[in-house]
Amino acid sequence: MSKTNSKTNYPFVRTIRFKSANLPGILGKITTAIGKTGTIIGNISMVHFGNRYVIRDIDIFVEGRSHMSRVLQELIRIPEIRVVEIRDAVLELHKNGLVGVVPTKKIESVEDVRKLYFPGSREVCTLINDNDTWKDTYTSIPYNVAIATNGTSVFDFPSGKPVVAMPILEAKAALLHRLTGINGYPIILDAPDTGTFIEAMRRIAPVFSGIQLSNVSSQYCFDIIPALEDALNLPVIHDDQQGNATVIIAALINACRTCELDLVAARVGVIGLGVTGLAISRFIKAYTGNPVWGATMSEESAKRHETDGGILSSLNDMMANMDIIIATTSQGNIIHPEMVRKGQIIFALSEPQPEIDPVAAMASGSSLAINSKAINNLLCCPGLWRGTLDAQAHTINFDMYKAAAHAIAECTTEEEILPTTLDNRVHRAVTHAVARAALATGVARRKLDDDYFENHDILKAPWM
Amino acid sequence: MSKTNSKTNYPFVRTIRFKSANLPGILGKITTAIGKTGTIIGNISMVHFGNRYVIRDIDIFVEGRSHMSRVLQELIRIPEIRVVEIRDAVLELHKNGLVGVVPTKKIESVEDVRKLYFPGSREVCTLINDNDTWKDTYTSIPYNVAIATNGTSVFDFPSGKPVVAMPILEAKAALLHRLTGINGYPIILDAPDTGTFIEAMRRIAPVFSGIQLSNVSSQYCFDIIPALEDALNLPVIHDDQQGNATVIIAALINACRTCELDLVAARVGVIGLGVTGLAISRFIKAYTGNPVWGATMSEESAKRHETDGGILSSLNDMMANMDIIIATTSQGNIIHPEMVRKGQIIFALSEPQPEIDPVAAMASGSSLAINSKAINNLLCCPGLWRGTLDAQAHTINFDMYKAAAHAIAECTTEEEILPTTLDNRVHRAVTHAVARAALATGVARRKLDDDYFENHDILKAPWM
Repeated sequence: MSKTNSKTNYPFVRTIRFKSANLPGILGKITTAIGKTGTIIGNISMVHFGNRYVIRDIDIFVEGRSHMSRVLQELIRIPEIRVVEIRDAVLELHKNGLVGVVPTKKIESVEDVRKLYFPGSREVCTLINDNDTWKDTYTSIPYNVAIATNGTSVFDFPSGKPVVAMPILEAKAALLHRLTGINGYPIILDAPDTGTFIEAMRRIAPVFSGIQLSNVSSQYCFDIIPALEDALNLPVIHDDQQGNATVIIAALINACRTCELDLVAARVGVIGLGVTGLAISRFIKAYTGNPVWGATMSEESAKRHETDGGILSSLNDMMANMDIIIATTSQGNIIHPEMVRKGQIIFALSEPQPEIDPVAAMASGSSLAINSKAINNLLCCPGLWRGTLDAQAHTINFDMYKAAAHAIAECTTEEEILPTTLDNRVHRAVTHAVARAALATGVARRKLDDDYFENHDILKAPWM
Repeated sequence: MSKTNSKTNYPFVRTIRFKSANLPGILGKITTAIGKTGTIIGNISMVHFGNRYVIRDIDIFVEGRSHMSRVLQELIRIPEIRVVEIRDAVLELHKNGLVGVVPTKKIESVEDVRKLYFPGSREVCTLINDNDTWKDTYTSIPYNVAIATNGTSVFDFPSGKPVVAMPILEAKAALLHRLTGINGYPIILDAPDTGTFIEAMRRIAPVFSGIQLSNVSSQYCFDIIPALEDALNLPVIHDDQQGNATVIIAALINACRTCELDLVAARVGVIGLGVTGLAISRFIKAYTGNPVWGATMSEESAKRHETDGGILSSLNDMMANMDIIIATTSQGNIIHPEMVRKGQIIFALSEPQPEIDPVAAMASGSSLAINSKAINNLLCCPGLWRGTLDAQAHTINFDMYKAAAHAIAECTTEEEILPTTLDNRVHRAVTHAVARAALATGVARRKLDDDYFENHDILKAPWM
């Protein structure tokens, strides 16, 4: 069970480099001093290891400048050390961006250039001209996914500058390749309305085999997905919808197992019916077959929820009556401890402040409370894409999402509700589960045999 | 001087694997037998090297099936060897495509994910939201180039299937990164007319710092370049125009030096005024300041040539009177040996058959004749982009192209008219020349100091 400390959600990572005598006990003093300020420590690495002194880098997560000062004040009191440097590890990592378009083959001789470019490419173009499907063998297209945004939902920034989304798109692309070998193309569309977005995506679709909408606000995303699926016959997902909702289903499966609650029979309430909240409601209804209660201040969201077969309710009523509460309101601390129902499972998912601190919720009788920290659509999207693309599925249906959720749930250790994002077992399990579901539901265009499921290393890119 | 054998332009590469006793002299017999059929040999590599036998792979360039049979017939006559396998080395190389979108940073711990993705990316997005120009430091955008086509000029294929262009785009992207570390994104637009092409490129422009049009036919490319430059304030080139024309200028500089002809005073005729022919005419006029003679069967091209200040003429008249002939007609053997003027420099650039075989042209009195083999816009584009992007130039002017042409010309060995494509010196020289020209002409937005020109390794990607 996850006893999450919300302090680890602090947005800034700073690296402190310090020098000290090479003696035992000093690192203990340093980490204790940092801990005293309520600060979480990340990686600690040795930069210099000499006979007389050592230099180490310590990553810490801070709220901002004043938090950083408090840490330094504590460190200054330790006479054995000297702070050499404070660096911003986030900005260092993001320097020059996170992804590149690189050759996947060695190019070492003029012969290689002739095979790759001229005259060699004519042979490959001829094949594709004769029959389109050769592109699936002799180009990278089968494993290319557009990670596309119009920048209308990047944290709480105004949506006037779509380019603000680039660091997130690059991060998603980098992780997609790192985890399951997919090529994620960061695509930012200067497309101020739904029509131009769909039009532009249709034009640039030929090099892609899937589209992952990212950071697109509710004003656009609900119309874009079905329009693109109709127009392109390609799988289209929105990571904030299907990606997050799949991970929530996985977390619910494990939470109910831990609390000995029957998910299918439980009354589930979703507070806040934005993009993610609505998707979660839909997925829970699809999973359990039962209607989901929902509360929202937006008339439009309320209408959508009713159209989906949901029941409208209020925050107070749901807190009083639901077995499970999922809150995605973007408002911190709106659930007061006295509202918690005994035995309730509570997912308080808003950032940076959750609707209720999990520790406070547990203290008030919740049987299990978590915030957003462990909920990461990275657990779902890489394997979802790899399985879908391996099976050459033209769409992603709920059976595939459900299979992904079960696979994620099953990879969890007893201590946690969800696995960690870099756990290879998860991505392999999700890939295989999704591919099997695609085969079983008839949306796969490629037959995958036992050899695929037994010997296939989905952590490697297809060209590796 | 290049005595080019046009047989090396054969489009298919086949790999023959054979086994033989481990004795000296056998490889000589094999290569002699292959040479007897008029076939050029590429790489030879050792696959197995034992005490009793060796296995080798030999790449050969063939015209097609019947050519291949002739080679095999010769090899069968050598009793000491056994042909084990014949493979298509081109298709093998193109399997799963040529480029991938990969992380440029190590992602090894959950800490790394937190810096890269959440919550780290918020810090970077905040910076960019405050001031757009931070994208130049903390994203890959400054080195992203769209290699974009609508597939309307892919060899001689009909233009209905834009995806046919993908192997060429991937090859260009792979080489762009291999040679100067630029991210080339293959972009295929399903855009059947100029308006939709421009519209789509405008929408997807935010992640790019340059656009390289590729395989776009004359019907579109002349309108697209100025429209995109106006709309986006980004450098836009068309490799078949500016890329090829720059390399032709470099080749002309060296050809004139070899033949002791003054390029500025020479009468130059261009036969065939398609996309490349018109671009060559324009560049020669810009370089020499003199009008260029031109012959074409297309009224539209004739008009364009006149608008550019060119003089219209005929094939026969130009062959009789010009000092230099550049032919880009797409028609083989239309220049008969008796038409060659004594001392004429002839570039016969059509493929697969040149307008006149260079050997025949030389035998008829040409002082220097080449076909398209050495003319490769790969000599220009990678360094052109690297110099332009290093200087953050918002456009590429003729001074920059001219600087690139001089840099290419100067990297040539005495034996050849142009350097080879994998010669690092060329790409470094072009990069620096273009960057200097950008600085000198005031189009650079970034100051580059001596350190850049002295220590900067442009063969490495910026993130390396």
